[in-house]
Amino acid sequence: MSLAALDDLDTPALLLDAGRMRRNVERLRTRLAPLGVSIRPHLKTVKSVEAARLILANGTGPATASTLKEAEVFAAAGVSDIIYAVGISPAKLKRVLALRAGGCDLAVVLDSLAQAEAVAAASRQSGMRIPALIEIDCDGHRAGVAPDAPLLTAIGAVLGRDAELRGVLTHAGESYGVVGAEGLAAFAERERAAVVAAAERLRAAGLPCPVVSVGSTPTAHFARDLSGVTEVRAGVYVLFDLVMAGLEVCTTDDIALSVLTTVIGHQQERGWTIVDAGWMAMSRDRGTASQTVDQGYGLVCDLEGRPLDDLILVSANQEHGIVAPRPGSGRTPPDLPVGTRLRILPNHACATGAQFDGYHVLGLAQDELPYWPRFRGW
Amino acid sequence: MSLAALDDLDTPALLLDAGRMRRNVERLRTRLAPLGVSIRPHLKTVKSVEAARLILANGTGPATASTLKEAEVFAAAGVSDIIYAVGISPAKLKRVLALRAGGCDLAVVLDSLAQAEAVAAASRQSGMRIPALIEIDCDGHRAGVAPDAPLLTAIGAVLGRDAELRGVLTHAGESYGVVGAEGLAAFAERERAAVVAAAERLRAAGLPCPVVSVGSTPTAHFARDLSGVTEVRAGVYVLFDLVMAGLEVCTTDDIALSVLTTVIGHQQERGWTIVDAGWMAMSRDRGTASQTVDQGYGLVCDLEGRPLDDLILVSANQEHGIVAPRPGSGRTPPDLPVGTRLRILPNHACATGAQFDGYHVLGLAQDELPYWPRFRGW
Repeated sequence: MSLAALDDLDTPALLLDAGRMRRNVERLRTRLAPLGVSIRPHLKTVKSVEAARLILANGTGPATASTLKEAEVFAAAGVSDIIYAVGISPAKLKRVLALRAGGCDLAVVLDSLAQAEAVAAASRQSGMRIPALIEIDCDGHRAGVAPDAPLLTAIGAVLGRDAELRGVLTHAGESYGVVGAEGLAAFAERERAAVVAAAERLRAAGLPCPVVSVGSTPTAHFARDLSGVTEVRAGVYVLFDLVMAGLEVCTTDDIALSVLTTVIGHQQERGWTIVDAGWMAMSRDRGTASQTVDQGYGLVCDLEGRPLDDLILVSANQEHGIVAPRPGSGRTPPDLPVGTRLRILPNHACATGAQFDGYHVLGLAQDELPYWPRFRGW
Repeated sequence: MSLAALDDLDTPALLLDAGRMRRNVERLRTRLAPLGVSIRPHLKTVKSVEAARLILANGTGPATASTLKEAEVFAAAGVSDIIYAVGISPAKLKRVLALRAGGCDLAVVLDSLAQAEAVAAASRQSGMRIPALIEIDCDGHRAGVAPDAPLLTAIGAVLGRDAELRGVLTHAGESYGVVGAEGLAAFAERERAAVVAAAERLRAAGLPCPVVSVGSTPTAHFARDLSGVTEVRAGVYVLFDLVMAGLEVCTTDDIALSVLTTVIGHQQERGWTIVDAGWMAMSRDRGTASQTVDQGYGLVCDLEGRPLDDLILVSANQEHGIVAPRPGSGRTPPDLPVGTRLRILPNHACATGAQFDGYHVLGLAQDELPYWPRFRGW
């Protein structure tokens, strides 16, 4: 660990532990291999070309994107197999066509006839069949067609005629509310059952369905049987965070992202230590608020990344964070003089990462901290 | 209004209504003039050189910054009178000295002897007396010295000897929990009384205290007497947001910031319309959750910016927003086909603005949308 180099960083700063990230990537790869599926990492978590190279086995994909900007940046960096996994709006099809014309096999996702007809029209007009996956609703979380809805085959027919029906895709967003291996294994089966049923209906209607895609980080780590599934998508597993630790998908030792901060003051009577990481650094994400252990705006660690007993960021203003013992823990606030440097583990890696322009990377070189730029926007 | 130009924007996109912003700036200026104080706008809300030009009367300040990055960017753009209003950490003094050497009258803020001694040492070593304001705690919200604490004059003495005691400063952060004119006027008096008492104690100890600075957007709009105060700081007043509307500091018609979004799907049975503005666009800020009217992740408007009756962003994933009638309103979801464009008013302008690289500006030119870049980082 190149901890001495941390002294030279202005705070707040975003740290990425490449050793932990490698371990997390390897863990899911090892876990899914015997289940006979490929991994399609969701690059929305890292939004970094350098990080993506470490995540993608061969650098070219498969990958998942949450914005066309991600698809464009990663395609320019050589990723050639991408699903843009947010329902397509017709106005975005120009950019989809441009990416495909440039050699990236970009597929879109949709769940309505209006979208399918727009994709079909754009395919006809351009002479390029745009591949689309039909989103399946497995848990009432967000978007998607029910696997048994007549709409499913109607959309499939439109795509099959004028575009390309690439397959079906689902995401068990509700799995973020389920703790532990048993519950998450059951949720993984719910994802599988929904999407496999949809695939079978399409095939029974004489339509193709080569890709059967499931995924969320919690279900990916606990699925026991993925028969009929061809690929698993997951994003936050590469970095992990306190929400995932609260679901028992990982431990705090697996969390590869942290925010370096400096003590700037105290309110002794209240037991507060004030640091220069507020919500602008941590994000406003309070994902652990509804979990058994509320981590406030983050779990406070020493410079080596070891959690300090029950010390959390209890409150955050734009550029101020208030560090104090977890309410009810009965702990005495530690002595952390002005200028002390700490690291804070985030509730939600995707949200905290998005507050920064790049990562200072620990664990790659002994005496230096490589900098990996992040991008953002749409 | 250049609404036709909105059709050409990729979504989500950040819109700034310059007409509303001008009106908001003028409103506070007109309000504070008879109270005999100057305004020191907090530029952390806009983080844009072009927006700052519209806010600052003469372009050179006074101004407030929440990061040294803001101070550096605005100083480079000609702002020469800035308070960096977050407790200084000793490691940041190098950048403070560089800014001062470059001609910007940058003052720092502190509330401990450790910080005062670091500022004094840096002043001695550089031969430049760094001006510092002592932060006063008026409401137990965050940082600051109690006006009657012995520490106040002890810090003042250290600064007076080796640096420059510029004055005292307070911020009534707790005013964000108070609704309406009466309560906010009382809070403004609490700010005034605390900081004036501190100034008098310093002067009684033979120390200078030229600047007596108060401020928050809610108190600035309802203070009735500012005797003894020299300046008022406020930030979000230039844009306003749903939290401020909930406090009755403004109406939704005053909110100058909105996010342009596109409908990408529906879940008819649940009454949901799905849009391409999730929390990555709106931020995770849920500041209205604790107010009388919970606006979810934002209040949905038509393209002209008129709120649609009781329609809010009830839920947000990273790139998906779920639009539905406010729970309990009994409203029927309106028919908003795929491709429909909407605007969403944010809970918290500082947080939503920070999710974007710039503003598309309405109301300046008839047929085009000027683009004002935002910056971020520390």
